[in-house]
Amino acid sequence: MSTYEASLASAAAFMERHERFLVINHVNPDGDATGSLLGTGWLLRQLGKQAVLVNEGSTPEKFGFLPGAEQIINASRAEKPEFDAVITCDCADFARIGDVKEWLPLGMPLLNIDHHPTNDLFGTDNLVRTDAAATAEVLYDLLTYMKQPIPQEMAVCLYTGLLTDTGGFRYSNTTPHVMEMASALLACGVEPAPIAERMLETITKAHVRLLQRALQTLVLRDTDQTAYLTITAADMEQCGAQNDDTEGLVNYARNIEGVEVGILYKEVASDKVKVSLRSRSIVDVAAIAQSIGGGGHVRAAGCTVHGTLADAKQIVEQKVSAALASQEASV
Amino acid sequence: MSTYEASLASAAAFMERHERFLVINHVNPDGDATGSLLGTGWLLRQLGKQAVLVNEGSTPEKFGFLPGAEQIINASRAEKPEFDAVITCDCADFARIGDVKEWLPLGMPLLNIDHHPTNDLFGTDNLVRTDAAATAEVLYDLLTYMKQPIPQEMAVCLYTGLLTDTGGFRYSNTTPHVMEMASALLACGVEPAPIAERMLETITKAHVRLLQRALQTLVLRDTDQTAYLTITAADMEQCGAQNDDTEGLVNYARNIEGVEVGILYKEVASDKVKVSLRSRSIVDVAAIAQSIGGGGHVRAAGCTVHGTLADAKQIVEQKVSAALASQEASV
Ligand SMILES: [Mn+2]
Ligand SMILES: [Mn+2]
Repeated sequence: MSTYEASLASAAAFMERHERFLVINHVNPDGDATGSLLGTGWLLRQLGKQAVLVNEGSTPEKFGFLPGAEQIINASRAEKPEFDAVITCDCADFARIGDVKEWLPLGMPLLNIDHHPTNDLFGTDNLVRTDAAATAEVLYDLLTYMKQPIPQEMAVCLYTGLLTDTGGFRYSNTTPHVMEMASALLACGVEPAPIAERMLETITKAHVRLLQRALQTLVLRDTDQTAYLTITAADMEQCGAQNDDTEGLVNYARNIEGVEVGILYKEVASDKVKVSLRSRSIVDVAAIAQSIGGGGHVRAAGCTVHGTLADAKQIVEQKVSAALASQEASV
Repeated sequence: MSTYEASLASAAAFMERHERFLVINHVNPDGDATGSLLGTGWLLRQLGKQAVLVNEGSTPEKFGFLPGAEQIINASRAEKPEFDAVITCDCADFARIGDVKEWLPLGMPLLNIDHHPTNDLFGTDNLVRTDAAATAEVLYDLLTYMKQPIPQEMAVCLYTGLLTDTGGFRYSNTTPHVMEMASALLACGVEPAPIAERMLETITKAHVRLLQRALQTLVLRDTDQTAYLTITAADMEQCGAQNDDTEGLVNYARNIEGVEVGILYKEVASDKVKVSLRSRSIVDVAAIAQSIGGGGHVRAAGCTVHGTLADAKQIVEQKVSAALASQEASV
C-alpha cells in the first residue's frame, strides 16, 4: 500500500470512527475551499454522520448557488456547536481556519484534507496530496477509495472546486486525472455552463468601473513587450472597489498580443504601491519581484514599493527592461 | 452495428482505399477547423498516405504554433496539387470550403468529417456526429475506432479544436466524453496552459483599444438588468480594428453581476447598426433578434437595424424592457 493509499484508508476510518463532525475551510474562502467543505459535508451525511460546516466569516454570496451553501455557519455570529471530531478542508496550516480555532479543544481528533505543497501536516490525521489540483480532487480520491456514490449535489460542489483551482482547466495543474474527474462529475449530472459562468465570467460593477479607468492608463513600452496599467487610490474609492475587484486586471496588460510582461501598479496610499507582474513565456517575474522584496511564481509575482507611483514605475520598469534585454542578448 | 459505427468503419475504409488526399477545412478557419485539418493530416501520414492540407486563404497566424501548421497551403496562392480523394473537416456544407471547390473534379470521392447539426451530408462518405462538441471529437472517435496511436503533435491539434469549440470547456457541449477525450490527450503529452493562453487569453491591440472605448459607453438600464456598449464606425477606424476585434466585447456587458441582457451596438455605416444580444438565464434574445429580422440562439443572438445608432437603441431597448417586464409579471 502506498503512503497515499494508507492515508486514504486512515481518512475513511476517521470518518467511520466519529459521529459528530465540525468541518472547517479557510478564511476568505475560494471556490475550492467552499466546494470541498460542502463535498465533505455531503459525504459525511451520506455515511450517516452529523456535520456542522463552518467558516470564520460569511461565505461569499457568489457561492450561494452551491447545494448546501446555506448551511455553512459563520463562526463569528454563531454559538459553538457540539462535535467530537474536526475536518479541515483546503487549509495548508492550522492558522488558515482563522478564529474558528478558538472552538477547538486541545487534543481534538483532526483530519486535514488538502493539496497545498506547503501543507505542514498539522492534523492528527492528514489526507494531503500536493500534486492534486484542488482539495476537491483529493476528496474525489477518497470517494473513489471508499466506493461512495456521488449524487449530483455533491458533484456540483466538487466540480466547482476543481474548476476554480485550475482556472477553468487552463492552468498547468490540469492533468489527465483532473479531466477524468471532470468527466465523471459531468456524468453525475453537473451542468458545466452555468457554473463556469458564475465562477469565471461574472464581473462586479466595481471591477468594470476599474477596468474602464485602468484601460485609459494603458502604456506599452520596450517595443511593445511590456504593458502596464495604473490604479490610483482615488480610482479605488471612486469606483467603490474592494481589493478583490482588481483581480485579473493585470491580465489585460499581459494578454495583449506580443506583450511578454504585464504590470499593474495599484496605489494603496500616497507612499505605498502594490505591483503585480505577469509574464507570458520568457521573463522570470518572481526574480524581479524578489529583488524588490516581493515574491511569487515565474509567471505571476508581486511586490510592494514604499514610494509614489512614479517611484514604483521607475524601479520596476528598469528591472523589466533589463530582464527583456538580457533575454534578447542570450537568444 | 450502429449507423455511426458503420460510418466510422466506412471512413476508415475510405482512408485505407485511397493514396493521395486533399484535406480541406472551412473558410475563415477557427481552432477546430485548423486542429481537425491538421489532425487528419497526421492520421493519414501515420497510415502511410500522402496528404496535402489546404484552406481557401491563409491560416491565421495565431494557429501557427500547431504542429504542421506551416504545411497548410493557401489555395489562392497555390497550384492545384495531385490527389485522388478529398476529406473535408468542420464543413457543414460544400460551400464552406470556399474557392477550393474549383479544384475538385466532379465525382471525386469525398469524405465529410463534421459535427454541425446543419450538416447536409454532401460527401460520398460522411462521418458526422451532430452531438459532438467539435470535429476534433469526431476525429478522436475515428482514431479510437481505428485503434491508432495519438502522437503528441496530433494530440495538440485535437486538443486545440476541442478547447476552442467548447469555449474552454465552458459551453454546455462540454460532455463527459469531451472531458474523457481531453484527459486522454493530456496523457499524450499536451500542455494545457500554453494552448489555453494562446487560444483563449490573447487579445489584439485593436481589441484592447476598442474595449477601452466601449467601456466608456457602458450604460445600465432596466434597474441594472440590461447593460449596453456602443462602438461607432469611427471607433473601428481609429482603433485600426477588424470585425474579429469586436468578438467578445458584448460579454463585458452581459457578465456584469445582476445583468440579464448584454447588448453591443456596432455602427457599420451611418444608417446600419449590427446588434449583438446576450442573456444570462431568462430572456430569449433569439426571439427579440428574430422580431427585428435577425436570429440566433436563446442566449446569444444578433440582428441588423437599418437606421442610426439612436434608432437601433430605441427599437431594441423597448423589446428588451418588454421581455424583462413580461418575465417579472410571470414570476
Ligand atoms: Mn485549493
Ligand atoms: Mn467545429
